[in-house]
Amino acid sequence: MPRLRVGIAQLNAVVGDLDRNAQRVLDAYDAATAEGCDLVVLPELMVTGYPPEDLLLRPAFVAAAAETVGKLAARTGDPAMVVGFPEQAGRLYNAAAVCAGGAVLGVYRKQLLPNYAVFDEQRYFTASTDAGPVFDIAGVRVGVTICEDAWEPGPILAAAAHGAEVIVNINASPYYAGRHAEREALLAERAREVGVPIVYVNLVGGQDELVFDGGSLVYDGAGTLVARAKQFTEDMLIVDVEAPSVAPARVEVPFEPVREVYEALVLGTRDYVRKNGFTDVLISLSGGIDSSLVATVAVDALGAEHVAGVMLPSRYSSEGSVADAQLLADGLGIRSFVIPIEPAHAAFEQMLAPVFEGRAPDLAEENLQARIRGNVVMTISNKFGWMVLSCGNKSEMATGYATLYGDMAGGFAVIKDVPKTLVYALCRERNARAGRDLIPQSVLDKPPSAELRPDQKDTDSLPDYDVLDPVIEGYVEGDESVAELAARGIDAELARRVARMVDRNEYKRRQAPPGVRVSRKAFGKDRRPPITNRWPG
Amino acid sequence: MPRLRVGIAQLNAVVGDLDRNAQRVLDAYDAATAEGCDLVVLPELMVTGYPPEDLLLRPAFVAAAAETVGKLAARTGDPAMVVGFPEQAGRLYNAAAVCAGGAVLGVYRKQLLPNYAVFDEQRYFTASTDAGPVFDIAGVRVGVTICEDAWEPGPILAAAAHGAEVIVNINASPYYAGRHAEREALLAERAREVGVPIVYVNLVGGQDELVFDGGSLVYDGAGTLVARAKQFTEDMLIVDVEAPSVAPARVEVPFEPVREVYEALVLGTRDYVRKNGFTDVLISLSGGIDSSLVATVAVDALGAEHVAGVMLPSRYSSEGSVADAQLLADGLGIRSFVIPIEPAHAAFEQMLAPVFEGRAPDLAEENLQARIRGNVVMTISNKFGWMVLSCGNKSEMATGYATLYGDMAGGFAVIKDVPKTLVYALCRERNARAGRDLIPQSVLDKPPSAELRPDQKDTDSLPDYDVLDPVIEGYVEGDESVAELAARGIDAELARRVARMVDRNEYKRRQAPPGVRVSRKAFGKDRRPPITNRWPG
Repeated sequence: MPRLRVGIAQLNAVVGDLDRNAQRVLDAYDAATAEGCDLVVLPELMVTGYPPEDLLLRPAFVAAAAETVGKLAARTGDPAMVVGFPEQAGRLYNAAAVCAGGAVLGVYRKQLLPNYAVFDEQRYFTASTDAGPVFDIAGVRVGVTICEDAWEPGPILAAAAHGAEVIVNINASPYYAGRHAEREALLAERAREVGVPIVYVNLVGGQDELVFDGGSLVYDGAGTLVARAKQFTEDMLIVDVEAPSVAPARVEVPFEPVREVYEALVLGTRDYVRKNGFTDVLISLSGGIDSSLVATVAVDALGAEHVAGVMLPSRYSSEGSVADAQLLADGLGIRSFVIPIEPAHAAFEQMLAPVFEGRAPDLAEENLQARIRGNVVMTISNKFGWMVLSCGNKSEMATGYATLYGDMAGGFAVIKDVPKTLVYALCRERNARAGRDLIPQSVLDKPPSAELRPDQKDTDSLPDYDVLDPVIEGYVEGDESVAELAARGIDAELARRVARMVDRNEYKRRQAPPGVRVSRKAFGKDRRPPITNRWPG
Repeated sequence: MPRLRVGIAQLNAVVGDLDRNAQRVLDAYDAATAEGCDLVVLPELMVTGYPPEDLLLRPAFVAAAAETVGKLAARTGDPAMVVGFPEQAGRLYNAAAVCAGGAVLGVYRKQLLPNYAVFDEQRYFTASTDAGPVFDIAGVRVGVTICEDAWEPGPILAAAAHGAEVIVNINASPYYAGRHAEREALLAERAREVGVPIVYVNLVGGQDELVFDGGSLVYDGAGTLVARAKQFTEDMLIVDVEAPSVAPARVEVPFEPVREVYEALVLGTRDYVRKNGFTDVLISLSGGIDSSLVATVAVDALGAEHVAGVMLPSRYSSEGSVADAQLLADGLGIRSFVIPIEPAHAAFEQMLAPVFEGRAPDLAEENLQARIRGNVVMTISNKFGWMVLSCGNKSEMATGYATLYGDMAGGFAVIKDVPKTLVYALCRERNARAGRDLIPQSVLDKPPSAELRPDQKDTDSLPDYDVLDPVIEGYVEGDESVAELAARGIDAELARRVARMVDRNEYKRRQAPPGVRVSRKAFGKDRRPPITNRWPG
């Protein structure tokens, strides 16, 4: 069996920037072929970035993608390239072009189109019913598949039945906690089923809510892991395949679970900020744990010189809050300034007094303060061109314990998919790695409070987070009903209360900024309940 | 041929309120059978409301729908009932239960599942590959189809081939301008193709962005329109079918095009407000045409006693603006109050002065004022439980000529799918119908201005609306590229500028409240571009 040297180019694409993506492909192709590669594999829809969403409905966009593939093919020499693009062929296909010798040798079209969770591929693409051609590359028969094709046995079995000695599977597979272990178990099984090596290349980088985590993989025909690329960064893996064997290669160690989530937040934030043309971010620092984590992630994503913190104390803020926020800012080495909101707070009270006469203070007055802060951060954002990062966590987003246009205001909601209990774990992990209290211990120790009225605590309105978070996980991520939650031991009244809070606050979440998806089901395109909805859960 | 009397129950469902929907079905069934109907037809997914979206992923919800259908069937006598529900049968189907004599006689499963525009049916349902049973109802063979099944010839041809003498087509078909004419042309063609009468029943009512416009239809086997129900309201049509003939019945005249859009806005607003449990709404009245139209729609939707207007003049507001807003409020008979925003405006300036020192006023100071207004209306909303209706039109939403968390703040954006030029037409139509200047003539006459700096006009930042709106229509609704727009005579520089504005403001639209879809492609679930997107258009 001839030896096939494969370069696995785990790249970060930018949606819509076809020229830039093509240049990255050619750079990777040149680097891999300089190392003697016979075949260079690129991710799914690398030419356009993934997911291009409704750009795929624009004929000019699809035509430009085809033209770009033509240019890529024209640049190839003897070594082959496999690269993902949308192919217009009467209908639109999610396709992979196999190019060599200056031309497109053939095209594989994806057979299984995911249309669940964050995926809408059936909105755009037609599923192929054909296993596609097997390509002779340097004397080895190579079968091509795309992402979801590997999640059922059919397509890879068909490729092997057509004589494929190596299976290439190109991906744009987004991250969630635990995802890479699922992928690895599955790919090992697929390789064993057909006794053929599988080369799995994944996209890397952030795109709106999604983070593609890289971690590209190679299995030999016995289903043994032979190579693993880095997570959350571009990488090039090179492997020598002598089917069904693969020579031992570099196997990166995956991150521990909490660190892995942290790295997803960092990459998702960096790419959202930078790919949207921003350099700097602004964070409202309350002295609480959520904004402390967001600031720390931002510093790791962008550098301390690109992060600014603003403290916006009100008449109800404790001295400890401002001190803690200042301690954090100093520890991180970020710019910070303090703008007490009392003048605006007093002005609004005066303006509203005639209308509110005779009414007791309630949630309206609390939200008012949060919205004054929202206005200040947005005005600074507009003035200096800094993107505002909002700091609400998943527990708050679920229950609506947040003010629309107030603390929810911002361009990106870094931790909106991170439950409060995981917020603590992330802070402890980051402190441990720093070897010092980057997030001050006082922030970790004090009970959470919005400080919008005297002596307020989160637990005035919400269950303890260690009680709340598992209910949210069951109701939101598990689609369990109140009855099902009660049947497995959760207090029925609590389950009913949480379900009601989750459902009644869908209208707020619909107006929230995007944030990094790190769970199996994030608020956003992953979860699409109606707003107008009387189902009791 | 026996005579089949059919009752077409065009009902307004509430998503998730299965008991209430079932009661409405039974009331309609009883009313129709009291009129001698042999068959009563109800809309698609009437049991759950349409679209139930991700509620369909919850097993308890789907089980409850099945249980509800069982209860409905148990209540039937000799006359048959056709009612839409989600059927769990290993896989999930968009189905119609045919019930009579206390039992479910059989189930039809939808064959064509729309997964484009606002539809995501392939996210939830499996497509049937089976034409389904033909049902003997009072001696007549009745074939059942569901909505999209009628949009290609196959399913109706198959039902006729299986012996159907009448085709029932149950629908949840959302409105856009011009939609009913398309439906009518299509159904006439389908009836002619098979020579069999078609009974088309549509849902009516608002559900989040969508308005189902009713207008149920009956065609005889020659493709002649025999009956048409009312638009935008519940209705019951009764027809006597003697296949392939149908006895002449009631044919409602559809609304004129501008009036039709107006009625869609009224129903969409009424149902969003009421189905979400609100009775009253609050509108920030600027004295401009957009807020004038929204207030007028709100009064028609909810009654003047349920609408409040607040005027929020700033140092840049003209006297004419407040006077025009007051004139409008008085003419509509709504509550109104005036809260000058100067105290808060001055307070923010003072708070921000140290940070902004040495910088000239710019957009930041303009947005600040809009966000002060946003805060006031939201604080009043929180205090009194009134839903805020925001007033941005489609031209503004497209170009981003609106302040996020400012004038964009609210629970429902009534006219977000109405281009500015259509805003004028709607006001003129409503005034003509009123026989007086419900919307003051001065509001119609003055040049549009945000009044956020001295002597500001919309045309300082935007092209004239009669130039802008056709470009938006081509770029947004038509998915045309800049080059394609230029090729059909639109100034290339203008097209490029508009495309850039549309694309760069996707992040704002993503945080906008929902509003009524009245066009072929509305911002919202209808149009899903990435935010992070470097495609130049």
